[in-house]
Amino acid sequence: MYYFGVDIGGTNISAGIIDGKYKMTDKACTPTIQGRSHKDILEDAAKLCLSLAEKNEIPLDKINSVGIGLPGLVDTKKGKLIYANNLSFDHIDIIKEFKKFIDKPIYIENDANCAAIGEMMCGAAHGNKNVIYITLGTGVGAGIILNGKVFRGAFGGGGEAGHMVIMAEGELCTCGRKGCWEAYASATALRREGRIAAAKYPNSEIYRLVDGNIKLIDAKTVFDAADLNDEVAMEIIDTYSKHLAIGIVNLVNIFQPETVVIGGGICAQGDRVIEPVNNILKEKVYGGVLKTKLAVATLGNDAGIVGAALLFKNFD
Amino acid sequence: MYYFGVDIGGTNISAGIIDGKYKMTDKACTPTIQGRSHKDILEDAAKLCLSLAEKNEIPLDKINSVGIGLPGLVDTKKGKLIYANNLSFDHIDIIKEFKKFIDKPIYIENDANCAAIGEMMCGAAHGNKNVIYITLGTGVGAGIILNGKVFRGAFGGGGEAGHMVIMAEGELCTCGRKGCWEAYASATALRREGRIAAAKYPNSEIYRLVDGNIKLIDAKTVFDAADLNDEVAMEIIDTYSKHLAIGIVNLVNIFQPETVVIGGGICAQGDRVIEPVNNILKEKVYGGVLKTKLAVATLGNDAGIVGAALLFKNFD
Repeated sequence: MYYFGVDIGGTNISAGIIDGKYKMTDKACTPTIQGRSHKDILEDAAKLCLSLAEKNEIPLDKINSVGIGLPGLVDTKKGKLIYANNLSFDHIDIIKEFKKFIDKPIYIENDANCAAIGEMMCGAAHGNKNVIYITLGTGVGAGIILNGKVFRGAFGGGGEAGHMVIMAEGELCTCGRKGCWEAYASATALRREGRIAAAKYPNSEIYRLVDGNIKLIDAKTVFDAADLNDEVAMEIIDTYSKHLAIGIVNLVNIFQPETVVIGGGICAQGDRVIEPVNNILKEKVYGGVLKTKLAVATLGNDAGIVGAALLFKNFD
Repeated sequence: MYYFGVDIGGTNISAGIIDGKYKMTDKACTPTIQGRSHKDILEDAAKLCLSLAEKNEIPLDKINSVGIGLPGLVDTKKGKLIYANNLSFDHIDIIKEFKKFIDKPIYIENDANCAAIGEMMCGAAHGNKNVIYITLGTGVGAGIILNGKVFRGAFGGGGEAGHMVIMAEGELCTCGRKGCWEAYASATALRREGRIAAAKYPNSEIYRLVDGNIKLIDAKTVFDAADLNDEVAMEIIDTYSKHLAIGIVNLVNIFQPETVVIGGGICAQGDRVIEPVNNILKEKVYGGVLKTKLAVATLGNDAGIVGAALLFKNFD
């Protein structure tokens, strides 16, 4: 049998086919184009799936199910998207609507939880049942799996580890609190610090790399400048790593998972971010004995598609 | 049937009898006296139980079991105390050793977890299955119950919510990290701030209440001074409440439990601490809709005894 996995994001709709060994055999992608209706977006997702099946000559009766990852709060049991700030619709019965295009068993889940499932089943946390997946991008998202099941708290909205304050009275977060981990460990935070530093140090490589056009600076610019031995950039990354580590140590002290998997844009930097964080984790974990493994996501951007495709296995 | 519950602390050994309706019918207490052997301490605990049975004319064949709460890391399955910084012994097979005195089924558990179980079964979180119990005393301890089971992470040492940094590079914590919640929300933290303020403001009521003998200041002194409208004390309590709230909001964002129960010495202050914290929680919780209830422990210091007595019900 084969399984469709769909990852609907604010920027792209991605779909893939997973075989019986949970290996992704093919994938495709199309722009989300924000502001469109749920019907248009779901239709595009279904078309991606169907064209993948056709291209790979897989008849539809060999397709077991479709799993869909969504960038927001979902009610997995009712099949509804409750809220997603990057999509222009909510309170939609996704399962019912998607079945109009592909009449197979449909499963939905939050995208960070899908990525956590993907990494647990086929990636960096393979073989584990207690996994925290952290995605470092525009924000800091978390997918928490306890004893093989997605953890979402008593009311379905838990797991918001990005909105754990690590700096009382610190930077303002998009959620309205001050000092959230997200305001220090997201790619957006790194971009903010890069821009502040460039404005302050016009002799820095960060400034030079964008020819003084500070609005062009993003997280990668800071890493690129550090590659040129820019001290300003290196200090920003050092501070960033420390703040990233604080949140991870917090989560390890609370959850003591088997593995913490780091995903999202920042994880493209690999060991350069993971190594200093892991050193802090070893030194600072409560009790002094680190049993949790820290790893970079091995499925990269595919983790969400793979995890979505695996939703039929029921992680609820 | 009846059930013995024992709470072994760094200061006192307490024991109680619980009836078939899980109501504590009698209790007794004796000093721990630090530095004594596990045999002496367990013997004292057993004597307390046996004298309670005798006094209440309950024959031993009406006693179902004994549950023991311990101030440290326990292996509930092996029945062993792994480590407790307030006791002078560790790696002791508590079940085997206690059976020498009372030959009944014996269960052991960490004391904060016992208190969480007590409050969930018979106290402020009665009827809930997802509860976080926070004890504010010398340190900040947590008992986390998810879906009716004690949560301890993949390796048995999780749940250390007190050692979640809320102030990067902040006050040094006993665990070696800087800025842990414990360093801001424990009674010890309140005492520290009271002493610092008294030294700085000799005209304050905090200073006057101890006749300038600053070492006599404890958490209660600060509350007493605030009762006398001491502005210095009121500001300390205000800041304390804010820091306490930060950790609670963090935990609610992550766990979204049904109830957070506040226990320990500080909770004697009741609404004066709970109300400002609850106001912050309502305002700052992620998503803006607070579904978690915040409550003061209703069993007070008995929560640990009651929870220990109920261990036979298996919360593992």
